[in-house]
Amino acid sequence: MVGGGQLARMTQSAAVALGVRLAVLAERADDSAAHVVPSTVIGSHLDADAVRRFARSVDVLTFDHEHVPTDLLHELTDEGIAVRPGPEALVNAQDKGVMRARLAALGVPVPRWALVGDTPALETFAAVAGWPLVLKTTRGGYDGKGVQLVASIEEAESWLAAAASRDDVVLAEEAVPFRRELAALVARSPSGQAAAWPVVWTLQVDGVCREVIAPAPDLSEELAAEATRIALQIAGELGVVGVLAVEMFEVEDFRGRRGVLVNELAMRPHNSGHWSIDGAVTSQFEQHLRAVLDLPLGDPRARSRWCVMVNVLGGDHPDLYRSYLHVMARDPGLKVHLYGKDVRPGRKIGHVTVYTDRVDGLEDALARARHAADFIRGVIDE
Amino acid sequence: MVGGGQLARMTQSAAVALGVRLAVLAERADDSAAHVVPSTVIGSHLDADAVRRFARSVDVLTFDHEHVPTDLLHELTDEGIAVRPGPEALVNAQDKGVMRARLAALGVPVPRWALVGDTPALETFAAVAGWPLVLKTTRGGYDGKGVQLVASIEEAESWLAAAASRDDVVLAEEAVPFRRELAALVARSPSGQAAAWPVVWTLQVDGVCREVIAPAPDLSEELAAEATRIALQIAGELGVVGVLAVEMFEVEDFRGRRGVLVNELAMRPHNSGHWSIDGAVTSQFEQHLRAVLDLPLGDPRARSRWCVMVNVLGGDHPDLYRSYLHVMARDPGLKVHLYGKDVRPGRKIGHVTVYTDRVDGLEDALARARHAADFIRGVIDE
Repeated sequence: MVGGGQLARMTQSAAVALGVRLAVLAERADDSAAHVVPSTVIGSHLDADAVRRFARSVDVLTFDHEHVPTDLLHELTDEGIAVRPGPEALVNAQDKGVMRARLAALGVPVPRWALVGDTPALETFAAVAGWPLVLKTTRGGYDGKGVQLVASIEEAESWLAAAASRDDVVLAEEAVPFRRELAALVARSPSGQAAAWPVVWTLQVDGVCREVIAPAPDLSEELAAEATRIALQIAGELGVVGVLAVEMFEVEDFRGRRGVLVNELAMRPHNSGHWSIDGAVTSQFEQHLRAVLDLPLGDPRARSRWCVMVNVLGGDHPDLYRSYLHVMARDPGLKVHLYGKDVRPGRKIGHVTVYTDRVDGLEDALARARHAADFIRGVIDE
Repeated sequence: MVGGGQLARMTQSAAVALGVRLAVLAERADDSAAHVVPSTVIGSHLDADAVRRFARSVDVLTFDHEHVPTDLLHELTDEGIAVRPGPEALVNAQDKGVMRARLAALGVPVPRWALVGDTPALETFAAVAGWPLVLKTTRGGYDGKGVQLVASIEEAESWLAAAASRDDVVLAEEAVPFRRELAALVARSPSGQAAAWPVVWTLQVDGVCREVIAPAPDLSEELAAEATRIALQIAGELGVVGVLAVEMFEVEDFRGRRGVLVNELAMRPHNSGHWSIDGAVTSQFEQHLRAVLDLPLGDPRARSRWCVMVNVLGGDHPDLYRSYLHVMARDPGLKVHLYGKDVRPGRKIGHVTVYTDRVDGLEDALARARHAADFIRGVIDE
């Protein structure tokens, strides 16, 4: 697995159970996964030689992020290395412009969009889509970085200039007045087997995932099926191998339409699937391993009526042991996951999960999970 | 954790989630846990210097087996090292003679027993307890090793001679005509908090644990409560820290008594608790870490109506990948755990778990788990 973040770390737990030997290419010796994976190689995913050497040392190459250059992955594939997902699929998670064009060609519902290189092009698009607009860098964004809501051409100028200086274009999209965000998570193996987890509700704050509820409450069966169908269609048409997360906007009356629009793709375990560790028969991490190793996929069904995941962000509390004493004593059923990262304000340092079989237990589960996350962060002190 | 077997390996998964840095003292670089724990130190648990150095490098010392000499652990405790469980508790899991005397003094029901050093002493005990008798080495036995059923004084001679040559005595016990074997698993923290998992049924074949059903079927509430009470009593009276497994015989009419008799103790995660990884809110591995770190204990309740664990023993099938293809395709809900050990006939190389919420689903769950274990072992081929 290229990348030593928390996704690789959590993949290690699945690898330990399956008896799979996980190796990681991590940038730094104190990366989250490096603490728990003996076969950690230190090297940058941007260093072609390092990636090449690492790739040749493993049976299957996969990723905890999208940042390995596409050209390099093509070169590895040409050499006969099993790269999963392959570069032709992965480029759709690497380059938002490629993704938008591909999804549009597939007839998948997406916001109106345009790749714009200069002010006149943006003005032309704005005349159709209206202000405000969402501007995105085509590559390299994550967790709200590389995304900007702009209300006028003046606000967009600096983005256009920055892109031009990189010889790049900007992806402009209409701002969708969504009811909420959903995520449909599926996995697909090289043999073409696919499995879909329940569609979840995701709450982002400042572009960072904060909470996930599985399954999404108040979601009609029709819309859940539609979201799942779209995710499976994308996985199949793009030839994805491994986990595919499809982030969507749910719209209630948008250009006369009720349904979902696809926002982003990720081809790896994803924050919207962390609930599955404790909440599903097969976690996204186990499933990703099974998929990239071309093993039969596991049952993705939920084990409880509701499962809630809340991210733990770093605060001013560096002493996590004392936080543990409190949150564990208060809630023996809470599942805490910490990533072994240094605490820095706003950084994702872990998550907590609460599940319940009570049909009316969602509010209570949310309250428990939020309390624990807030307490560990240091936002509350009791 | 001293010892690099599968218990340390499975503890690593819990440590990864909790953000706890696990270090392991393993005898060999290819031990089960050494594959998955970066902070593995190679050294023998019988090498006092190696254990001492390792103990001084960690915050809390705990164990994946009982084989560290008691004297050495006392020395470490005297030095101020946190040894959990402490030597005064642990000696009861190390020395069956000490354990029998202690449990008898506590009034815990045990089979009739005697420590015997020679033939006359054994004859005296046999005159009371009758033949056959069970002979056990006081130290070092596991998985049926160090245990022998003998029908006559002649059959016992070689055991007595072997013990005498080690300057040791033999533990002789009456052979209990049990209905079945049960295990009560509890955890206790230094603060005295305790938690008990449901009492399970365990099936041993040739002294090796083969199957566990949680909770034990057809067990009256009274007997379950009695077994749990005994385990909690032992944990408290002995000052156990961490997981305590109490293996028991269930008797239906034995010397006019219906109930349980304590057979063996283990003070660490135990085969009878592997089901808890997939089947309980808090696994025994997470609980052991929480207990030895003096964190509040987690909820030990079962998540499903039935949970079945079947050990996978090594067979003539070294190619586990092909086995995986079959068992995973046949049963997407099966949870497979392999320990990364070389396959040798009869060796515990993994386990499989199946859970179900169907009240009448036990037979089906057992059949699924047995099929998978047999297939991976190579006993069946479809």
